[in-house]
Amino acid sequence: MSAEVLISIDAMGGDYGPSVAVPGAALALDRLRGEGRVVRLLLHGDRAKLDAEIARHPTLHDAEVRHTELVIAGDEKPSVALRRGKGSSLWNAVEAVKGTPRAAAVSAGNTGGLMAIAKLQLRMAVGISRPAIAASWPTARGVTVLLDVGANIDSDAEQLIEFAILGEAFFSAVHAASGAGRPSVGLLNVGSEDQKGHEEVREAHQILKRGLIDLDYRGFVEGDDIAKGTVDVVVTDGFTGNVALKTGEGLARFVSATLREALTSTLPAKLGAVLASGALNAMREKLEPPGGGVLLGLSGTVVKAHGGGTPRGFADAIRIAAHLADSGYADQVARNIERVRPELARVKDGSSVSAETGA
Amino acid sequence: MSAEVLISIDAMGGDYGPSVAVPGAALALDRLRGEGRVVRLLLHGDRAKLDAEIARHPTLHDAEVRHTELVIAGDEKPSVALRRGKGSSLWNAVEAVKGTPRAAAVSAGNTGGLMAIAKLQLRMAVGISRPAIAASWPTARGVTVLLDVGANIDSDAEQLIEFAILGEAFFSAVHAASGAGRPSVGLLNVGSEDQKGHEEVREAHQILKRGLIDLDYRGFVEGDDIAKGTVDVVVTDGFTGNVALKTGEGLARFVSATLREALTSTLPAKLGAVLASGALNAMREKLEPPGGGVLLGLSGTVVKAHGGGTPRGFADAIRIAAHLADSGYADQVARNIERVRPELARVKDGSSVSAETGA
Repeated sequence: MSAEVLISIDAMGGDYGPSVAVPGAALALDRLRGEGRVVRLLLHGDRAKLDAEIARHPTLHDAEVRHTELVIAGDEKPSVALRRGKGSSLWNAVEAVKGTPRAAAVSAGNTGGLMAIAKLQLRMAVGISRPAIAASWPTARGVTVLLDVGANIDSDAEQLIEFAILGEAFFSAVHAASGAGRPSVGLLNVGSEDQKGHEEVREAHQILKRGLIDLDYRGFVEGDDIAKGTVDVVVTDGFTGNVALKTGEGLARFVSATLREALTSTLPAKLGAVLASGALNAMREKLEPPGGGVLLGLSGTVVKAHGGGTPRGFADAIRIAAHLADSGYADQVARNIERVRPELARVKDGSSVSAETGA
Repeated sequence: MSAEVLISIDAMGGDYGPSVAVPGAALALDRLRGEGRVVRLLLHGDRAKLDAEIARHPTLHDAEVRHTELVIAGDEKPSVALRRGKGSSLWNAVEAVKGTPRAAAVSAGNTGGLMAIAKLQLRMAVGISRPAIAASWPTARGVTVLLDVGANIDSDAEQLIEFAILGEAFFSAVHAASGAGRPSVGLLNVGSEDQKGHEEVREAHQILKRGLIDLDYRGFVEGDDIAKGTVDVVVTDGFTGNVALKTGEGLARFVSATLREALTSTLPAKLGAVLASGALNAMREKLEPPGGGVLLGLSGTVVKAHGGGTPRGFADAIRIAAHLADSGYADQVARNIERVRPELARVKDGSSVSAETGA
């Protein structure tokens, strides 16, 4: 774990640009070095603005600034970001990790643009047909990874299996407690019986439960299993995953606004809130989703930090990026893809697996 | 609004049977009579058990008990419920509304069994091809209805349009504030641009936005719009809707458990919780989902109350059932189905609407 990891940061992205990215980078660097990791930082963006921020953080004295004045706006369409984004801080951050082992790019900028540029510059990992975005949720038992949350619209059985492999390797690299066993994996469905759900999930279920792949597959899970933390990795198509993620985010914001309103509604409630403020702050921290979305399946790691996030959130995205780059993630994926390849070839040929098993 | 409404209750369903259903019925009857409605109650179940509960609620003195000893277990498979459920409290509750105008059945029992039995006994409403389950969510702006949350797995453009019509009429009948305009309707997607999402949602969007149907269609909405209350009615397929609903329920339970834990973690937090208890209880009430799931699209109203719910929750399910039975809901659906029928026929014929509009 002592080889150098390169973290390439789009320091201009998100709502707050360098004023979040630079302190976030400093925070992350301290933590990662505290873990004994060797990290080299690249910061892409306007040199004058970055230098002013960096001056406040001595820990960043050896970070390298790569100057560019071009920034992709947060609301730019992916197609426009692709056409006009060349040479921007986001583009350069991704380009710097291309072909570099043990490297990862981090940006709080335009999600669609980041995905499009990453797909263009970084090839697909061997054996993977589509990338997926993985989100990490705080749950009753720690963290659950949900994927895909929006890189794709439709996903067939083959892709769902690839997502299971990617998600499991990602969880191992980033969230697994040391000494913990293999992460557990579930397939999101509307019930737990084999015959539930549409054809794609049923077919993926049949292949996963045969145990050809080296992962701890637990079968179907339902929406409420995400927050319960029933399994470590929840696999679904990009449409359902995106709706689930955003539904959860919306609900969390609504509950937190309602709680804030309740605790300022009366004088006794206000006093109560002051007394309980320590516990309430600890709770808020516990409920905050760690890190942002990670683009998996490319040969190269790209992490999307929250656009409206804090330095702490940005630091967490960097931590995830560094752990992923500094892990056996890619090898684990390659091994499992190799194992399931004959089975996937059969699925593609159209010889249905459920027919074979008589289901 | 003074014609009699018949409410037919499976008093044995759910985790608590008559001990929740009977006080719930009493509570609902008081409220509905307070609104000036004329309600007749049928209670299906074990006469001895029901009579013992009814004796405690004078308001139920004229409720009619229809005795049966057969009860469908909560974990029975729908196919088994269909085969062996005849004559059970759930079966009889549904049967009693068959062919009866201004009638609705309410049960806290086995969801799959209730759906299967309702589909078997009550025909589809004219022009509707599939029933849908509608759930009501508390939101920042009041209540949002989400459908389908699980009656179907796949839904094509035609069904999504039917769900929009059913959901809008349901919202008008049950949740609309008096004097409010038409409910607004959105189609759940992963972005707001016309070209986003899979074929089914894009096709339904093209038809809905033409304005042939008499409803206030606002276009695509995303997962976080549910809790925001951006629109009154959110339309989606049964797979996505079920995942969204259960994801939300799971998250709400997790947040509430975390809050409870925080407010008992230290002595100051405990004191604070006591001071703020009034405000916190009001908040909990505000966040509680009203009523349960309603099975729409059949000729006959069936409401599923929460299996582990309280008398208040059961009463709310009865209130929804009574308002729906006592409304012009069915006529509104029939009028809108009539309007969109030529368009839907074209969709079925396979002449793509998006091709016509050049999109």
